[in-house]
Amino acid sequence: MKKIVLLRHGQSLWNLENRFTGWTDVPLTAAGEEEAREAGRLMKAAGLKFSRAFTSYLRRAVKTLNLALEEMNLEHIPEEKTWRLNEKHYGALQGLNKSETAARYGEEQVRLWRRSYNVPAPALEPGDPRSPFTDPRYRDVPRQYLPLTESLQDTVRRTLPYWQEMIFPCLMREEHLLVAAHGNSLRGIVKTLKNISDEEISKLNLPTGAPYVFEFDDGLNLTRDYFLGDPEEIRRKMQAVEAQGKKQ
Amino acid sequence: MKKIVLLRHGQSLWNLENRFTGWTDVPLTAAGEEEAREAGRLMKAAGLKFSRAFTSYLRRAVKTLNLALEEMNLEHIPEEKTWRLNEKHYGALQGLNKSETAARYGEEQVRLWRRSYNVPAPALEPGDPRSPFTDPRYRDVPRQYLPLTESLQDTVRRTLPYWQEMIFPCLMREEHLLVAAHGNSLRGIVKTLKNISDEEISKLNLPTGAPYVFEFDDGLNLTRDYFLGDPEEIRRKMQAVEAQGKKQ
Repeated sequence: MKKIVLLRHGQSLWNLENRFTGWTDVPLTAAGEEEAREAGRLMKAAGLKFSRAFTSYLRRAVKTLNLALEEMNLEHIPEEKTWRLNEKHYGALQGLNKSETAARYGEEQVRLWRRSYNVPAPALEPGDPRSPFTDPRYRDVPRQYLPLTESLQDTVRRTLPYWQEMIFPCLMREEHLLVAAHGNSLRGIVKTLKNISDEEISKLNLPTGAPYVFEFDDGLNLTRDYFLGDPEEIRRKMQAVEAQGKKQ
Repeated sequence: MKKIVLLRHGQSLWNLENRFTGWTDVPLTAAGEEEAREAGRLMKAAGLKFSRAFTSYLRRAVKTLNLALEEMNLEHIPEEKTWRLNEKHYGALQGLNKSETAARYGEEQVRLWRRSYNVPAPALEPGDPRSPFTDPRYRDVPRQYLPLTESLQDTVRRTLPYWQEMIFPCLMREEHLLVAAHGNSLRGIVKTLKNISDEEISKLNLPTGAPYVFEFDDGLNLTRDYFLGDPEEIRRKMQAVEAQGKKQ
């Protein structure tokens, strides 16, 4: 049966420090690496045999993919990397502590930046050292595509062309595909797959390191979706993500 | 300046156990992983900025590539994987201890299997569990391309189409390319680049973990080639590879 699995990377250094990350290229923590390996073991036990995988340009997603594939003895399969699967760009908030930002701007403002569909964080200046305009890894991307901040709507809109053109059509000739990426770029994919409204998608908190399986019939219609792993652990992880925006 | 760097993976589990490996998919040891990281540090210090990398289907080469790229902050670049960069297929010798094989067949026979240009080891039976015919990772490769044993000549001949068609032409539009692979598939590339004779190429012992840099002018003519790293350490590594075929 045709399947696509979405995998959100686990704990990164700035998740641990509760800072806005966005396009900042921070590494996984040791705990995040273990989440990736455990995801690989779960997917192997579920009989998934990926023939192709997709990930972002950011090392926390690439490393998650590599560690999961190592657990599955699938190091040889092609990995496609794209900036379009990057996390939501958090503009000038990138690097700031979430709790401090909540104390300064108020929980409601932070909730809007984190969870509204169309309110972006304040934009970076184009000359900011954090700007993608000066980062050599984006030099092949047309300047007008590159964000200085993004709302979730912006992230969904720049993720979808890659999903529609490069990922989903592979199901025509391949059986199992894996996408290792970020909370918000994966929300864009889930929104499309399950036809979720703008309001509802903001409330969906994908658990880290829990493979999210989508099954399709031969006409590529979605027939079933479910997480792999312990349901109680998954519920706990969803709540942990939700709690990150609170003052502490 | 246009550059291609060849990187031979470091110590694998069967290097350590002195067994014929070939297409057997054994992992790196901890020492082999450290060789890969050190190679990454050397290449970073040399100012290499790869835009694309190539590796085999075998995890000791893939892992070497991934660890080196992590040290260089280049996790985002595309990696192309191909069976054509796999190690020489060692036929029915795969899994046997090199010293025991030398004691049984004689050092001269083992030297021929390891170092002659056109003497292959005894072939696997097509139904052997070690045969690539039944390994799902090769299911997209035409059966008549897949070896049950190989001489170095066979390895060179199956490596070159990929080198000629997929790697070298990338230099027309890219500056720095990295190829992480195996002693014998890399010999094929060195043979072509430096126009080395069939007799001489068998004597070339590439050191593990030492990046081998080839520089080209704008007409893509080879202008210079050299290893990165400590010359004494490189000499020691070349001798260690040569000594593997002796009785102990």
